Amino acid sequence: MSNLQVISTPAAMRAWSEAARARGEHIAFVPTMGALHAGHVALLSDARKRGDRVVLSIFVNPTQFGPSEDLARYPRDLAGDLAKASSVGTDVAFVPEVKDMYDPGYQTFIDVRDVSQGLCGGRRAGHFTGVATVVCKLFNIVRPHAAIFGEKDFQQLAVIRRMVADLNLPVEIIGHPIVREADGLAMSSRNVYLSPADRTRALAIHQGLAAAGERFAAGERRTVALVEAALAKVKAGVDRVDYIELRDADSLRPIERLDRPAVMLAAAFVGATRLIDNLRLG
Amino acid sequence: MSNLQVISTPAAMRAWSEAARARGEHIAFVPTMGALHAGHVALLSDARKRGDRVVLSIFVNPTQFGPSEDLARYPRDLAGDLAKASSVGTDVAFVPEVKDMYDPGYQTFIDVRDVSQGLCGGRRAGHFTGVATVVCKLFNIVRPHAAIFGEKDFQQLAVIRRMVADLNLPVEIIGHPIVREADGLAMSSRNVYLSPADRTRALAIHQGLAAAGERFAAGERRTVALVEAALAKVKAGVDRVDYIELRDADSLRPIERLDRPAVMLAAAFVGATRLIDNLRLG
Repeated sequence: MSNLQVISTPAAMRAWSEAARARGEHIAFVPTMGALHAGHVALLSDARKRGDRVVLSIFVNPTQFGPSEDLARYPRDLAGDLAKASSVGTDVAFVPEVKDMYDPGYQTFIDVRDVSQGLCGGRRAGHFTGVATVVCKLFNIVRPHAAIFGEKDFQQLAVIRRMVADLNLPVEIIGHPIVREADGLAMSSRNVYLSPADRTRALAIHQGLAAAGERFAAGERRTVALVEAALAKVKAGVDRVDYIELRDADSLRPIERLDRPAVMLAAAFVGATRLIDNLRLG
Repeated sequence: MSNLQVISTPAAMRAWSEAARARGEHIAFVPTMGALHAGHVALLSDARKRGDRVVLSIFVNPTQFGPSEDLARYPRDLAGDLAKASSVGTDVAFVPEVKDMYDPGYQTFIDVRDVSQGLCGGRRAGHFTGVATVVCKLFNIVRPHAAIFGEKDFQQLAVIRRMVADLNLPVEIIGHPIVREADGLAMSSRNVYLSPADRTRALAIHQGLAAAGERFAAGERRTVALVEAALAKVKAGVDRVDYIELRDADSLRPIERLDRPAVMLAAAFVGATRLIDNLRLG
């Protein structure tokens, strides 16, 4: 369990992967921004089952943060991350420096135009351009056969799936179900920002989505009614609702009636902390 | 010389390349829009020397044409192209259909922001976004070790070099010197549009660049004087000068004095046909 190798340059990472591929090994990849929690560990355990080799990347990607966002204070815990990764049999932690990912003349960006619209893309200008760009770069450096992403970042996963299909990237994309605390709060690196009181109030997001799920189970199919059911609960706990929307689960286009696989997505502020969650319906 | 294999789907092309790579073969790739002329044949011959396997792609890429450009009438000659490719020992011609490159939900585009500005990028909105996107797609399908591009499309080559570096694409990019007719006209698929009289007038573009080259050889280093020397000659032949500019050869940024490797780039209309050419200086 303690054979975790830390690689810090793209060239060394590429060389490791080429050698593993030449040996016929299947590489499963979990890209992260670090501050690993039980959700990330579940992704790594899943990767362990799927690949001969498991690669984790830890990179707080500056191009996906807006100027007023929490890049500088984003939680970092490399020693803790490496211990957690090692405990589930991760082979490599790729931990590049910003200067090695973005040189001073860097200027290439990938836009996944439609799926990036609205929801988090509407609130965080350029966010999904930064996400798509860094994921493409990481795929080209790590050269995985499969990559595993959490479904909590549902729109991010949709953006990546679409980019991979559109750009013919030779990587299988696997979505992993949301991992939750015992009381239902979706695991997030940003949960460490929450005071104990805010932590309790944050539960309202999951409870609101669950309320919509109950209305759906009881036969409700109108978007407006399902969103209303969620909104009532969420509003009671959080300081500000950023969005609660029902969308087509594949295209992420808005729908008026739940007549196909759908997902309800929510984002809300508790204190200064912005949290997201979602629930598949249909 | 007659073992040219035509492959039409991305999946079959990917499978061919995976098999070639598994055998340890080095793949050299020449992406084209077809209508092959002696310039393309020179690229294929170069590829033949560099690779165990040579792949040519023929794809008139709709996303790099503007709405008022010549997509519909762009010259096509598949039989002639295959004969020329076969004559220089090309192994595979990848000839995908538009529907297999861009499905109805297609939405991912790559912007190489700075190098795409001005010159042809200023005149042809979205052109280099389309170029970068399709080249990235082709690289992911064909999986070449090296790809060869003509230097006539100098800005295109700069865009591709920058994209490959920025996105960590595992492909070596090789620029091939401009191939010219005996009288100096740069080879282009669009030369077939020219009437005999226009063909003669089109020579003025190369002659203008050559005049600037003579001034440079005589010691002139001021951009304004070098451009003026070219402009006088070019104007005398063509119907409309689109641009004549002196730029840094790597960044393509404008320069006031020729104090580093530079390139003079020209675009002009002869009749309705837009032609480009360039000359390295310094």
